[in-house]
Amino acid sequence: MRDRALHAIAECQHLATMTEEPGRITRRFLTPPVHDVHAHLRRRMVALGMEVRVDAVGNLRGLWKPEISRARRLVLGSHIDTVPDAGAYDGVLGVVLALEWVRLAQEAVLPLAIEVIAFSEEEGVRYPPFLGSRAVAGTFDKSMLAYADTDGIRMDEAIRTFGLDPSKIDEAALDSQVLGFVEIHIEQGPVLDTENIPLAVVSGIVGQTRLGLRFAGHANHAGTTPMNLRHDALAAAAEWITMVETSVARAASADEPGLVATVGTVAVVPNATNVIPGTVEVSLDLRHMSNRTRDWWASQLFKDAEIAARKRGVGLESVRKVNEPAVEMDPDLSLNLKLAVEAAGYPLKTMPSGAGHDAMVMATGMPAAMLFLRSPGGISHHPSETVREEDVEATLHVGRRFLERLAAESGT
Amino acid sequence: MRDRALHAIAECQHLATMTEEPGRITRRFLTPPVHDVHAHLRRRMVALGMEVRVDAVGNLRGLWKPEISRARRLVLGSHIDTVPDAGAYDGVLGVVLALEWVRLAQEAVLPLAIEVIAFSEEEGVRYPPFLGSRAVAGTFDKSMLAYADTDGIRMDEAIRTFGLDPSKIDEAALDSQVLGFVEIHIEQGPVLDTENIPLAVVSGIVGQTRLGLRFAGHANHAGTTPMNLRHDALAAAAEWITMVETSVARAASADEPGLVATVGTVAVVPNATNVIPGTVEVSLDLRHMSNRTRDWWASQLFKDAEIAARKRGVGLESVRKVNEPAVEMDPDLSLNLKLAVEAAGYPLKTMPSGAGHDAMVMATGMPAAMLFLRSPGGISHHPSETVREEDVEATLHVGRRFLERLAAESGT
Repeated sequence: MRDRALHAIAECQHLATMTEEPGRITRRFLTPPVHDVHAHLRRRMVALGMEVRVDAVGNLRGLWKPEISRARRLVLGSHIDTVPDAGAYDGVLGVVLALEWVRLAQEAVLPLAIEVIAFSEEEGVRYPPFLGSRAVAGTFDKSMLAYADTDGIRMDEAIRTFGLDPSKIDEAALDSQVLGFVEIHIEQGPVLDTENIPLAVVSGIVGQTRLGLRFAGHANHAGTTPMNLRHDALAAAAEWITMVETSVARAASADEPGLVATVGTVAVVPNATNVIPGTVEVSLDLRHMSNRTRDWWASQLFKDAEIAARKRGVGLESVRKVNEPAVEMDPDLSLNLKLAVEAAGYPLKTMPSGAGHDAMVMATGMPAAMLFLRSPGGISHHPSETVREEDVEATLHVGRRFLERLAAESGT
Repeated sequence: MRDRALHAIAECQHLATMTEEPGRITRRFLTPPVHDVHAHLRRRMVALGMEVRVDAVGNLRGLWKPEISRARRLVLGSHIDTVPDAGAYDGVLGVVLALEWVRLAQEAVLPLAIEVIAFSEEEGVRYPPFLGSRAVAGTFDKSMLAYADTDGIRMDEAIRTFGLDPSKIDEAALDSQVLGFVEIHIEQGPVLDTENIPLAVVSGIVGQTRLGLRFAGHANHAGTTPMNLRHDALAAAAEWITMVETSVARAASADEPGLVATVGTVAVVPNATNVIPGTVEVSLDLRHMSNRTRDWWASQLFKDAEIAARKRGVGLESVRKVNEPAVEMDPDLSLNLKLAVEAAGYPLKTMPSGAGHDAMVMATGMPAAMLFLRSPGGISHHPSETVREEDVEATLHVGRRFLERLAAESGT
């Protein structure tokens, strides 16, 4: 299988040359290089005997049907758009490996139909994220067609320019009788690399809370205001940021594994060296697989902020909030993935995904499962993103066992 | 004396109408409203029998000489420039009250010559600060004449436009045989108001250290990076900011009274809600009357930053530094002010100034002393800056005792 793994890596590197920006990998929704990616993947699909089409949201879809009629359909895939100045593997590798899985199913003459989808949009750079998978899952909100990108180009105009008919987006939806959806994706984090494990079966996509906190103190002269007469908004915010890190790290290492909290932004007013900060706004990003755990921590951390503010005579308000629930992967489909990992002789690791993926959207319409590959150094969304040959090979060994199990189970 | 205090306050309010911006008090170095201020103060000086001139840096200077020849000269004054959107008393009050002290000296027929200087520039809004007092103290750096303001106007051009000759700046310097310089100024901080004391004799101007610290961690995905695998630059900076506040406040309330430390600016990169902060730059402003104490704390706080950084695998560097030594007021001249405060029946309070003043610059060339008036609410550099009538009156009672003592001591 090593030669096939090397071929998959070479494919990703070749697709990386199809970019909006020479020298950098940048491929946004339905931009011109997407035509090149489609042309290349279409040739690969046709060579595998697949029927190929592009749906109205720009997903390239290849369908393999075996000789046996009534074979049930499995859906595989990931996305082919990228963030600006991306790496070569985020998304694309999942499409390339899906085609390798089709080849494995064909070689074993498995009674499985397999549709491979190269989703047109996942990253949300040009328009909102997950456009491709939303259309396939039947959850595409058509009011989004009027959204404009930063150049003022509406989404429906972009779709027409690419040669597609935005009025036909409904036809992209899959019926719910498919066996399920499986996505192969790089982890984009350091967990597998740190634990020296090649693969993980994803338990679900964590839920996410975003809070904006505003600490309101008094701006005063840094030289003439004694320490005991200050209402320093930054001192309050800093104590709270320390509390967030300390208490969440402690919980994550004890009874709440996987809990993460991040203060990513700080805005100080007036932000002058010789003035005590008057107001400070900070963001909180909190994620966990359990919605109840996440809600409890959001409330607890806000209380901590109130304590840090009150003891300095500083006001506190919460200025905005995002609250996205966690999405569980399908237990049965995931169990087949886990058994395949073990049957292929790899250590079994299960972990939640801290980032969103197409599988999260697909899970609203069908059973969905995900397989992570180790990200060396945890690096992603960066040109130095990479994969190990042996890990790519591992996904092929696992794929063969998984497809065999699924074919046996689906009982055609 | 109450009527004279009310008159002084009315004078400040009248001078506040002479502004670059209708509705706001803004009067930068040698801008057109400075002509109006000069005209008004010149009439007041002439009415007191003073010889009036404007020196080459734009200081308005009135000299009162008593009948007795060889009377030694005392210098009084403060500045008439303002910050943008200023209050009515910062600087100006010290000039107006200096003229009231001249009247007191005349009424008591004291054998004292008194020069009152309305310094043209202290705030440093248009050009560097303390231009007026530097010229009088003989420490004006003539290379500054080539500095341009934000409109591209050079300082020497601004001086010529006002009708003065920048080549004659040397002639502004006072000889060192004067008795000394005394400045009356609002405190611009909350200490006297909090302690309910009208006046303070200033012990000196605190020294100041400014450090810029750069915490360099790793920017990573907020969702996919577990708490124990992070190198969060903001978490390190936040813990340090908390250490600065806690340890300096504790020291200030115990064995280092007057010590203040402020983190006023924060810059986070990339400053995105869903990205762990990669680098964070913060400023430290540290002030105290003892240079040794200040140096020790600067070094100690940097060590604290190293600890906060190291435990998270975050790098640390110091990116810039200001180191201005403290300036002591003259002990003998200050003693006369203290004795005058007690003789006038007011509680004696001595305190350092946390902000710079013309007296700090004048102290390099002659004995200098300062008298602070309470700032209600600690408010300054703001339109709501104010003074209490009884505190202004107190400066007149103290002034009479002080001038009497000085006349007796100078022994003419």
